Amino acid sequence: MSMQKPTGTQDLLPGEVEKWQLIEEKARDVCRRFHYKEIRTPIFEHTELFVRGVGETTDIVEKEMYTFQDKGNRSLSLRPEGTAGVVRAYAENKLYGDPDISKLYYVGPMFRYERPQAGRYRQFHQFGAEVFGSTDPGLDAEVIALGYAIYKEIGLRDVTVEINSVGTPEIRAVYRTKLQEYLKPMLGELCRDCQSRYERNPMRVLDCKVDQHRFADAPSVIDYLDDEAAAHFTKVQSYLTAMDIPFRLNPRLVRGLDYYTHTAFEFKAAGIGAIDTIGGGGRYNGLVGEVGGPDQPGVGFGLGLERILLVLAAQGVELPAEPQLDVYLIALGDAAEAEAVRLAYELRGAGLKVDKDYTGRKMKAQMKSADRFAARYAAILGDDELAQGVITVKTLATGEQTAVPLGELANYVKANQ
Amino acid sequence: MSMQKPTGTQDLLPGEVEKWQLIEEKARDVCRRFHYKEIRTPIFEHTELFVRGVGETTDIVEKEMYTFQDKGNRSLSLRPEGTAGVVRAYAENKLYGDPDISKLYYVGPMFRYERPQAGRYRQFHQFGAEVFGSTDPGLDAEVIALGYAIYKEIGLRDVTVEINSVGTPEIRAVYRTKLQEYLKPMLGELCRDCQSRYERNPMRVLDCKVDQHRFADAPSVIDYLDDEAAAHFTKVQSYLTAMDIPFRLNPRLVRGLDYYTHTAFEFKAAGIGAIDTIGGGGRYNGLVGEVGGPDQPGVGFGLGLERILLVLAAQGVELPAEPQLDVYLIALGDAAEAEAVRLAYELRGAGLKVDKDYTGRKMKAQMKSADRFAARYAAILGDDELAQGVITVKTLATGEQTAVPLGELANYVKANQ
Repeated sequence: MSMQKPTGTQDLLPGEVEKWQLIEEKARDVCRRFHYKEIRTPIFEHTELFVRGVGETTDIVEKEMYTFQDKGNRSLSLRPEGTAGVVRAYAENKLYGDPDISKLYYVGPMFRYERPQAGRYRQFHQFGAEVFGSTDPGLDAEVIALGYAIYKEIGLRDVTVEINSVGTPEIRAVYRTKLQEYLKPMLGELCRDCQSRYERNPMRVLDCKVDQHRFADAPSVIDYLDDEAAAHFTKVQSYLTAMDIPFRLNPRLVRGLDYYTHTAFEFKAAGIGAIDTIGGGGRYNGLVGEVGGPDQPGVGFGLGLERILLVLAAQGVELPAEPQLDVYLIALGDAAEAEAVRLAYELRGAGLKVDKDYTGRKMKAQMKSADRFAARYAAILGDDELAQGVITVKTLATGEQTAVPLGELANYVKANQ
Repeated sequence: MSMQKPTGTQDLLPGEVEKWQLIEEKARDVCRRFHYKEIRTPIFEHTELFVRGVGETTDIVEKEMYTFQDKGNRSLSLRPEGTAGVVRAYAENKLYGDPDISKLYYVGPMFRYERPQAGRYRQFHQFGAEVFGSTDPGLDAEVIALGYAIYKEIGLRDVTVEINSVGTPEIRAVYRTKLQEYLKPMLGELCRDCQSRYERNPMRVLDCKVDQHRFADAPSVIDYLDDEAAAHFTKVQSYLTAMDIPFRLNPRLVRGLDYYTHTAFEFKAAGIGAIDTIGGGGRYNGLVGEVGGPDQPGVGFGLGLERILLVLAAQGVELPAEPQLDVYLIALGDAAEAEAVRLAYELRGAGLKVDKDYTGRKMKAQMKSADRFAARYAAILGDDELAQGVITVKTLATGEQTAVPLGELANYVKANQ
């Protein structure tokens, strides 16, 4: 029986994997410029971390986690998202003791047990950034700018930002009452989900796919911001304007959990249909405390790499081709073969990208490999050449051939870049 | 209560993570030169894959796997090593249909439930290479050369290779009988493990930590190689000699499983004590068939990244420092602050590595940050400068100060690299 990959997972093969490498390299490069440092946290964490850090009543924690007991009977879960682990690591490693704020990024696989569907995987991949230690609205703007710059650097077109302020827990307590007052008269007509959300989390009612059209005149949380929260939000917007980042206000953009504060935002892309959100984040001044750390503010975002690839394909963005091979070595005969193995190693040691045949094929078939690999040169070594200490170098673009002393091949190829 | 990482896992924090980035970049760069392409397979696989591909009676599969049921009641396991998944992906995606052989590499986390001890983690990280589609001994040599070149590129000193040939399953069947004949007279005196291995896998007896000293005159499998296997092994050695890779024959080096064939090898490092193996691999012409694929030969190796870091530390190898910050912006006053947020974004867009303060500290504290980040320039913006459209640029190495027009700052910094 042939073995298959688990449902909802992907193999990233040569030809496709280079896109992932490129996206990650570009994201890392932008982070370097923004002075964000990488952090790597474990693939699994204690289940309790996600219960606290993602939220006990979320679908993620209730239905979608890969949870298992280790042999010491501790409940562990594969991480369903990236923030909780980073917050835990920030607190556990006491990074808050540093004299500077912590500007961190991560990239890697996440896991959710979901129905398999187009573009949704059970192992998916996220890039994210998290900053701890400052409530400065300039930092909210910087974090948004970082995400925007990464999309731009990768080559996505027409990315825009939607932003909102969800205030503070105190502000939301007032707003929640006002919202319930507004919803109460129509409660009997709302869908079952909305009726249940009405008590638990009325802000989520505004997100309802079924009933959304009814709420055009619902109160918005930004109408209830106090002076401090309003000033914070105004500054974030003025910074975004100064950086010329295209954004619009979306008073419906909410994050349901209590530790979210002030800025909430989503990145949107054109050309991929109705579900156009490609990333999002916000400020979470209560989260570090929630997982047992000190009362340190945070702000961050997460981007789905699979989503980025979807947008690149939909927008027809061409990624640069991978660098071509410098030399494909073709050996004819046993003695030449032995020399070719050595020569390949020498050329690679000199920094060149080199390959050769290992299947004993005829010269013509080997030439085809050189073409497929887009090699700049095919270098042909037979017994005659070997006796004379030379190798025949063919420039594949022109068909031109020349004999080069064996010891000179590396220099010849480097001189003719 | 504060949350902690699971036992046996690590957080890789800024300051340490840069070493990992460097090792991975160098390994990738060497792979590019050797024309190996990356493959990424899922973090978990069907448990059955490891039972077949790693071996049902191995400690890894019997005791060390993180195994769990998914919600569809399939048994999944976190990958305990890298080869099985790559072999599965090669077969499932029919890469054997390509006209060229498949030269692949992978890097990522692996998982084994082991007693925590120094240098052993339950989540650890491996780099590996696997090649499918050729029995050419030149490829065995190339794969060894690839591993050796990676260690060298990273900066490890005094790396050597031990090699052996374990022949073919037919050769080993003959050898096994001879070995049992040799062991039989002393069987009663051997340790309990050896007595059990005597029947199941007598070659493993030679590995025994307790009884090893007794076996000095035991027969070796290389004495039983047939002409073809001997010729293969001779060629591998002659290629290694031609490439000037330091190796020595170790007739005791065995790999216990039936699908291993011909070359077996280990990389050894100096200066880390008795357990000096830092990587290993071999040819496994039967493995692709074992997991249900076609009868395609393979050869590969795996390197532990934690081991590499251990050797780097033991050998006192200094890795190059991370690139310094180009500019640390210091803003004094609200208007300057707003301009600094914008200016940071502009400079980063121009390719510079830039940071600023977000905690409203005094100028002196901000200057200390600039020093800690090893910034080349501190650029100071107050209300006076803003009114004049300039910024005061201080070269931190010399203390020299000069006023630069705001719009010229990016060019000024780039011109003075």
